[in-house]
Parts: sequence; C-alpha cells; structure tokens
Amino acid sequence: MKLLDYLCIMQFQSITEKDIIFFRDLPGIKAVLNDEESILACASDQTEDLCYRAQLVIQPETVEAVSAIMKYCNEAGIPVTPRGAGTGLSGGALPVYGGIVLDMKRFNRILNVDTRNFQVTTEPGVITQELQEHVKEKGLFYPPDPASKGSCFIGGNVSENSGGPRAVKYGVVKDYVLNLEMVLANGEVIWTGANVLKNATGYNLTQLVVGSEGTLGVITKIVLRLLPAVKHDLLMLVPFRSATEACAAVNAIFLAGHTPSALEFMERDALEWSMKYTQATGISLPADIQAHLLVEVDGNNQELLYKDMEEIAAIVQQYDIDEILFADTHEQKQMLWALRRKVGEAVKSNSVYKEEDTVVPRAELPELLRIIKKIGKEYGFQSVCYGHAGDGNLHVNIVKAGMSDADWNNKLPEGIRKLFKEVVRMGGTISGEHGIGLVQKNYMDIAFSKVQLQLMQDIKKVFDPNGILNPGKIFAGEF
Amino acid sequence: MKLLDYLCIMQFQSITEKDIIFFRDLPGIKAVLNDEESILACASDQTEDLCYRAQLVIQPETVEAVSAIMKYCNEAGIPVTPRGAGTGLSGGALPVYGGIVLDMKRFNRILNVDTRNFQVTTEPGVITQELQEHVKEKGLFYPPDPASKGSCFIGGNVSENSGGPRAVKYGVVKDYVLNLEMVLANGEVIWTGANVLKNATGYNLTQLVVGSEGTLGVITKIVLRLLPAVKHDLLMLVPFRSATEACAAVNAIFLAGHTPSALEFMERDALEWSMKYTQATGISLPADIQAHLLVEVDGNNQELLYKDMEEIAAIVQQYDIDEILFADTHEQKQMLWALRRKVGEAVKSNSVYKEEDTVVPRAELPELLRIIKKIGKEYGFQSVCYGHAGDGNLHVNIVKAGMSDADWNNKLPEGIRKLFKEVVRMGGTISGEHGIGLVQKNYMDIAFSKVQLQLMQDIKKVFDPNGILNPGKIFAGEF
Repeated sequence: MKLLDYLCIMQFQSITEKDIIFFRDLPGIKAVLNDEESILACASDQTEDLCYRAQLVIQPETVEAVSAIMKYCNEAGIPVTPRGAGTGLSGGALPVYGGIVLDMKRFNRILNVDTRNFQVTTEPGVITQELQEHVKEKGLFYPPDPASKGSCFIGGNVSENSGGPRAVKYGVVKDYVLNLEMVLANGEVIWTGANVLKNATGYNLTQLVVGSEGTLGVITKIVLRLLPAVKHDLLMLVPFRSATEACAAVNAIFLAGHTPSALEFMERDALEWSMKYTQATGISLPADIQAHLLVEVDGNNQELLYKDMEEIAAIVQQYDIDEILFADTHEQKQMLWALRRKVGEAVKSNSVYKEEDTVVPRAELPELLRIIKKIGKEYGFQSVCYGHAGDGNLHVNIVKAGMSDADWNNKLPEGIRKLFKEVVRMGGTISGEHGIGLVQKNYMDIAFSKVQLQLMQDIKKVFDPNGILNPGKIFAGEF
Repeated sequence: MKLLDYLCIMQFQSITEKDIIFFRDLPGIKAVLNDEESILACASDQTEDLCYRAQLVIQPETVEAVSAIMKYCNEAGIPVTPRGAGTGLSGGALPVYGGIVLDMKRFNRILNVDTRNFQVTTEPGVITQELQEHVKEKGLFYPPDPASKGSCFIGGNVSENSGGPRAVKYGVVKDYVLNLEMVLANGEVIWTGANVLKNATGYNLTQLVVGSEGTLGVITKIVLRLLPAVKHDLLMLVPFRSATEACAAVNAIFLAGHTPSALEFMERDALEWSMKYTQATGISLPADIQAHLLVEVDGNNQELLYKDMEEIAAIVQQYDIDEILFADTHEQKQMLWALRRKVGEAVKSNSVYKEEDTVVPRAELPELLRIIKKIGKEYGFQSVCYGHAGDGNLHVNIVKAGMSDADWNNKLPEGIRKLFKEVVRMGGTISGEHGIGLVQKNYMDIAFSKVQLQLMQDIKKVFDPNGILNPGKIFAGEF
C-alpha cells in the first residue's frame, strides 16, 4: 500500500453521544471531558502557537481502561492522540484530526525502585524531575534531563527520545529504557522486551517504540535502568569573543580526552534574553562577547574533578575569551542552570518564532553555525542559537521580528528546507531530541529516501492498521 | 497474514545452472563457489555440531553486487543467508533452507576513522579485534569485545547484538551503532539513520536492525561511535569456596558504588577445563574452590584504580574466599583473559554440549545458579556455568557426558524449556548476547506472547515480503 492510499483510509469518525456514554461507563477512567476549558487545555503544547481541538479528553487510570478505549476506537475509527504534560516542541501531542486526547496524567505512580538491580518501574505520567529526585533518595541516578524536566512527563520523554544537557556524557532516554508495557491500537497489551541489561532475543521492539511519538501504541509502564548516584559536580561559564571559536573549543575539549557531563552553547542573545527573563544578576556581559559555553564535569572524586576543570579551562583559554565564571556555590550553579534552561522560554517570549532542532557530527558545529547565519541573511530571518554543543545538537530559534507575514509563511519554509539539506549533507539530521511530530514532518523527505519512509510507514501499519493512533504525525500528509 | 500462511510461502526455488551463470557474470563478485570444500566451509558455525549445506556460496565485493544478487533472488525465490566469520553460537548463519550463502569476507575494509568526531565507518567483514586495534592506534576505543573477538566479524556482532566482558561498564554493540548501510531483500540500498549522537527523526531503524540476525537486510557498512582510549586497567582473580557466594558478591560490588570494566564468573569446572585446554600454569586451584570472579577496573588515573581495586577486594573478602590473585604484569593479564576467553572452547572440547545464554536482573544470579543445578538434577544433566555476571548474563553449558541419546534428544529440551520459563519468571530472557538464530527459536514462545511474535513476524514481512532473507531463523517453524 502506498502512502497516498494509506492517507485515504483516514476517514475518521466523529464522536457521538453514544460513544461518550460508552466511555463514561468504562471502569478505570477518572474523567471524560468535553467542556471548553478541558478541550483547550489539550489543544496546545509548547510548540509555537498551534491549537487543535479534540472532541473529547479522556483521563484513564488503568491499563485495562486504556485497552478498552483503544479497542473501541480502533473498531469505530476514532483517532486517539496520547498526551503527556504537553511540553513537546514538535506538536507531537496535538489532536490534529480531532477525536480523543488520551490524557495520561493519572498514570502518575512510581511503581517500584529496584535498588538491588538499579532499575525503576514507573507509569508514564510522572514528572521527570520527581522521578529523578525519588531515585536519588535511594542513591540512584536517572541522567536524562530535558530543559523542561520540572514539568514534562517521563512518558513524553520516552515517546520523543528526549535528551538534555547530560546526554553528552550519559546518553539520551533510549539508552535507559529496558522495557515498556504498551497498549496496541487494537487494545492488546504487550511488553516490548525484558528487564535486563543485555537482550538478544528477537527484534528490539523497545527501541522501535522509544521515539515513535505515540504513533505505535500507548505506553502504560516504563522500566528504566539507573546508575549509582554521582557525588560531585563543578560548573563554569566561559565567555567567547567569537561564536565560531566557542563551537571550535567544544571539539578541542573532547579531543583532549575530557568527557564533560554537560557542554552547552549559548549565543549572546540567548543568554542576554534569558538574563532579562529570569532577572538574573551577577553576570557581566561585555559588549564584545558573542557566545558562552557552560561546562560541567561530574564524578565521585572531587580532587580529580578540579584537575579536570583546570585542564578544560586551560584549553578554552587558548581561544579569545573573557574571564571564566566558576560557580562556587550551589546557588550559583542553580542560577547558571536556570539561565540555560530558561533560554527557550525567554527567546520565545520575545517574538513569534519557529524552533529547529538540528544535529550534526560534533566537529561540524562551527560550520553549522556559519551556514545558519548565511541562510538567515539570504532569507531575511534572524536566529538565536543555543543547545547541546557536546552532542552537535544546536537549537535554532528563528524569530519573526520584522519579517512580513507573507515571508514568514512562504519564504521561511524554503530557508528551513535549505538549512536541513545542509545539515543532512554534513552527516546530520533534522531532529536531535524534539521529534518530528507535526511541525517537521514535511521535511522528512530531506532526511530519508522514499524507500526508508515507506519502511517506516509500513511498520506503522503493522502496529496500527487503521491509522487511529496519533494520526497526522511524523509522515507528511494533509496536516 | 498468520504465521502459518507465511511459512507456506516458503516454497523456495533450487538454484539452476542459469542462475549460476547470472551470478558469475555480475561485476563486483570475487567468487561464486559450489565445490564441496566451499559448501562445507559455510555449512557450520560454532554452534554445536550442526551442518546445513547451501547450494552456492557467493563472495560479493561491492554494495552494487549485493543489491543485484538480492534483487535476483527476491524475484526468483532463492533463499539467501548472510554469513560473517562463522563464529555464531545460535546457528544464525546456517543456510537451513539451502540456497545461497552470502559470504561477506571480502567486505573487509575499515573505510574511515573520523578522529574529530570519534566515529569509525567500516565494512562488516572486518575482524572485531583488528577494528579495535586500528582505532586504538588513533587514540580511540571501541569497547564491545565478544570472547571470539580475534576471529569474529564486526558485521556478525551487529547482527547478533553481541556483548562481551566489557558490556557491564560500556554496554553492548547496540550502544555503539549510529548508522548502517544495508541492502533490503528487494535490492534497494538504504541507510538506517544518521552519523549523529542524538536522533529523534522518525522510527529507529538502526536499533531495529541491530540484533535482527540477518533477517531484515544485508549490512554493507557500519558507522560506530567510539570513546577516547582508556589508559590503564587492573585485573584480579578471586577464588570462592561457594559458587552462590560468588554470585552474591557480584551485586555487593555494584551496590557499593563500583562499576568494574569486567566482572566475570566461572564455575570451578570452567576454569579447570580452560587451564588444561590452554596449558596455563601458575594458578593454584585448591579442592574446596567452587567458583571464581575475574574483576577488572579501568580508567585514566592509576592511583584511583588501585583505590577502587582495594575497595572491591575488601568487599569480596567478606565472603569465604581463598587468596586473591592480582595480575601484576601484562603477560599475567593476558593469561587470565585467555583462560576466560577459552572457557567456551575448552568446555565444548570435552563433550557433546548445548550452550544456553540466560540473562536475568543481576541480583537474581544466585537464584538462577541454584535453579540451573536443581533442574539439572531433575532432568539428569550436568552443566558448567560461566559468563558476564555483572550483566546477569550466565552461559550455561550443558554437557552430554553420560546422558543417553534418547534423553539428550527428548528429555533435555523439556529441561531447557523449564529453565527458560524460570529465567523469564525472574524478569530475564532467553538470550543475552548469542541471539536466537536456529537453536533457540522453538523457545521464543516462552519469552513472548503470540501478539508480540506476530508483531515481529509482521515487521519481518515489511522488510522481506518473500521471506528469502535468512529463512528459518528467530521464529519457530519447520527447522
């Protein structure tokens, strides 16, 4: 079946009063909502200013309820969009075909911390930071820490294969997921793997589902491997007079044999706007500074960490930098991290924007930055760049500012297309950690050939033959 | 389509003289062989004493040749079994339906070591140890080190998602594969991902293909991420008077916050037979010793490593152990590692055997060992256990010894079935690193429900609708 035929199937049914009565009578459901406020609360996420209304918001509490809902919707042809905390940056949780939003916030229990095997079993609606703090109390460590960790759900992190600053040393979400319980489109409940560190038993369904953005099933339980808690960390902020040199320094640090636990890049505007937004004080920002690197090292031996940090400082001092700010206290560290974590919000509060999530092999960063600015000049857009430089993952915030609506709607997509083509040419791809969702799906042909896309589309059909699960995402089409 | 219907499709064609002429005329092929010696060389691997004859062995040299072969065979209905170095332990490379063995030994070039981005691009027919040594010369480190590293191919490692002693600290092959070039059943050539450390762009085809045992495509290029080389390591051998205590000590080491770079378990018989087999000297093996742990730590700070090793030694000394042997010299380390690496060969040279590759959550190891011995008594088999205790991955070598042929053929599979059920009950699974291939496929129903197996089977059909790629593997059926 070709892509077009598949889309033709998507003749979804509207929800009727009869359907609503069915859902209201199901056990294990906290709420079935269709009031204006509830519909609007699930119509947006943190992606631009998008708004898509579902017909119904259902808050299930049990796997059995999710299974019954899916079975019913699969037979009735009602689209179902699973939703976590709504912090996504690619529109993955938006019900673009209406139907039902499956609001997973009642799946909010951490079921078991296995301190003997360094594993945690959790429901998907747990806030990532709360999960981290919970396992930390037991001497364990779950590293992935997206900027939104204080509000995002772990289920959303699994669905988008989220990253965060620590990915550079510790890897992304996929590197911690051992096993998933999930409800298929037809209501069947499966586990994707086993709770083990090594597994060579059949195809790796777990890794197929991680990052599949709610299009293959509804995740209801997550088993994560954990690490022993790390005792110490050190943090410094390095101001560079050249943004290109800041990017170049990133690779120099790795080539010297260091593996920082975070290596974040921020263009001047990013830091400046975030300082205003968070009302931060105590950081000087001389007029000739173009960019900053935020560098963290962590480990259990503090003496060794100081040595590490000194060596990294010596490396960056070979570039044209201003005075390094070492965070001396816990509060200072918190403040610097808050500045970094709030950059996205700060930039977005300034203007209408579009955020791209480019990723390239790390050493190509200076070239990527150069190309972004060049394309910006050509297409008349401004950009503020920041992100996980240690991973080669640069967030490009394109701000509308003085751009006309016509140019914003028509010319900009061409510019983004050109940028993504350059990213792929450099060995990179179009999303490092935000996912494709709704807003990047029309660029998928840049990253993949028709053959690759057809394989993915056919895999989707294996899991969801009627196409009811989070339709309109990942693959180009009507929306 | 149900499993049974799918198997009915497998009406493969015999190879004719016309086919052979077609292959001989293709460019990019080193050899097309059907002499007895060549057929027999590809009829076995390191799995028991199995022997399956292909009709033809083809040695392609280029991706274009692989593509042309696949296209032809897909249309003609000729089965194709890709083969690496033939070191597999689950019969994954055996041509059980005859047809063609695609012998990948001519794909033996390391194409590019990217020292700026810590990546290597290689063809699949490179010996793993040679790859490791090649990147080490450039200051880089590829950790996965299966016991057969001196002879196995990296392509086979990717196909089976191999592990090895270092997996406990550094992860398995899947944790290093960034991107794969592969030829699909219909001859189309794709890349599965991108050469980046983070990727949230569409479904993770790369991780789906890793460990798929040559059933989804023929891998022709592999991009691996690398680490900076590690400077130092320390090794010790700890003799325990109780095998159960040795297993218990494994978890105690992790719970104290240590992450050794290897933590290997060997039952007395394993070490004793390996000492004889390798003619090792200088190791005393008192009569009351039941098992050994081989413990390695690695890192860049030697002082810290000594401290680490002392702390680990203090932990194991809380159990009933004999004198610890610290490897003082490079030669002594080599000797101890050779003993461990040769255990498999040594045990197998002693008797007809079957090797199981059980894996459980690490803390369940003592219980696993107890159950293995209990089931052995019940079903009348002896077993020699060894493996990667730090991962909870225990190889169980069942030796035929005095067992009758009838019991070996009929009773033993029941015992194995019982063992695997216990493994799954403990949260584990039936293969940690050897794969399912031919010899474990009839046990897949223990690890997975019908729904899960059907999903996998349907994914197989997406990639290989005519079922010509390595048929008869992973999924239960005729063979």
